[in-house]
Amino acid sequence: MQERVLSIQGVKRLPYYLKFLKELQANGVTYVPAAAIAESLDIYEVQVRKDLAAISRQPGKPRVGFTVNALIEDMEHFLGYDNPNTAVLVGAGHLGQALMSYSELSHYGLKIEAAFDVSPELIGKNIHGIEVHPVEQLTALCREKNIEIGIITTPMEYAQEICDQLVAGGVKAVWNFAHIYLHVPKGVLVQNEDMAVSFALLSNHLARQMGEIPVEE
Amino acid sequence: MQERVLSIQGVKRLPYYLKFLKELQANGVTYVPAAAIAESLDIYEVQVRKDLAAISRQPGKPRVGFTVNALIEDMEHFLGYDNPNTAVLVGAGHLGQALMSYSELSHYGLKIEAAFDVSPELIGKNIHGIEVHPVEQLTALCREKNIEIGIITTPMEYAQEICDQLVAGGVKAVWNFAHIYLHVPKGVLVQNEDMAVSFALLSNHLARQMGEIPVEE
Repeated sequence: MQERVLSIQGVKRLPYYLKFLKELQANGVTYVPAAAIAESLDIYEVQVRKDLAAISRQPGKPRVGFTVNALIEDMEHFLGYDNPNTAVLVGAGHLGQALMSYSELSHYGLKIEAAFDVSPELIGKNIHGIEVHPVEQLTALCREKNIEIGIITTPMEYAQEICDQLVAGGVKAVWNFAHIYLHVPKGVLVQNEDMAVSFALLSNHLARQMGEIPVEE
Repeated sequence: MQERVLSIQGVKRLPYYLKFLKELQANGVTYVPAAAIAESLDIYEVQVRKDLAAISRQPGKPRVGFTVNALIEDMEHFLGYDNPNTAVLVGAGHLGQALMSYSELSHYGLKIEAAFDVSPELIGKNIHGIEVHPVEQLTALCREKNIEIGIITTPMEYAQEICDQLVAGGVKAVWNFAHIYLHVPKGVLVQNEDMAVSFALLSNHLARQMGEIPVEE
């Protein structure tokens, strides 16, 4: 009986495994040993084996390793990529447009159905195949299209209001790029992608390197 | 003797504390009880007290709480914000411009001294006060200006090459927004800000909510 549990750090490694495996697949490679994955990504082989065992029932074959295609399938299933999620994006500025142009996300099962903004210059535009709607239509369109994920790339002062409208529209998860703590009802997942928070980690790391501040890993 | 250690999750909470404290400061509030911080950010009070004890020697006063100004100072010191870091940004597309326009980062001690790109339309431009230089000047300019942080917002196929040039220019840390694993010499810190990785977490979370996949926290 397999446990199929993986730490958050483990989940974070999966997209790198997946990227490497897809390169192999594109080059017609059929088998890959754990050692080759480990070397390519600077990860201990024992860690690679543990991660793969958590997401795949496939046993590595002695000498040749794992079947690339099957490993990709198992990984995509574990990550839910085989079950595409519908999303809307609110705030079609630079960050929003960067996300809309980021084709990796669609390979990974994220389908941005519509974007929303308040700016008359953006409304009605088609950006990388995604139409920009007036924000007044947000809740209704989420309900109508059964949207699962709301992506917030607005300035922070509008983020909570937009979040409430997404929740009213029935989204199950909010991917929040605004620098604000969002209040949501129980059962709605918020994932914060806050550059100020990321920079805090980086800045604290540098302060540590200079011997000023210790941090427990 | 105080330990002043804090988990990575704790470091990630600090920018939210800091934002709340600065709002209080702007409104002329002098003292804040831990309970008020806890309530505003939906965090247990005992967690707030533990985090604050790790970064500040200031004891909370019974009834009134902590001195807002002193707490801000201690937090900014812990995060290294009182010791500004110089940075360059490579790749002045949508994501790069979103970062350049993100004024929070400068409040937090990040000074982007210059941007770099290959596009003739961008080179020579001044974007939010930051000049875009040809990428050929990257290493020399990093050396000359003693740059500490390199921010990579290029397409992934150029990221390793740019990273090598940043390292040759003497940067101590790379903030990597490209979807690629970067190889760096020992002593250089890489912080990955990979939207594909973030989406993997979100997608896996949603798959879990639907009861498909367990993840160990």
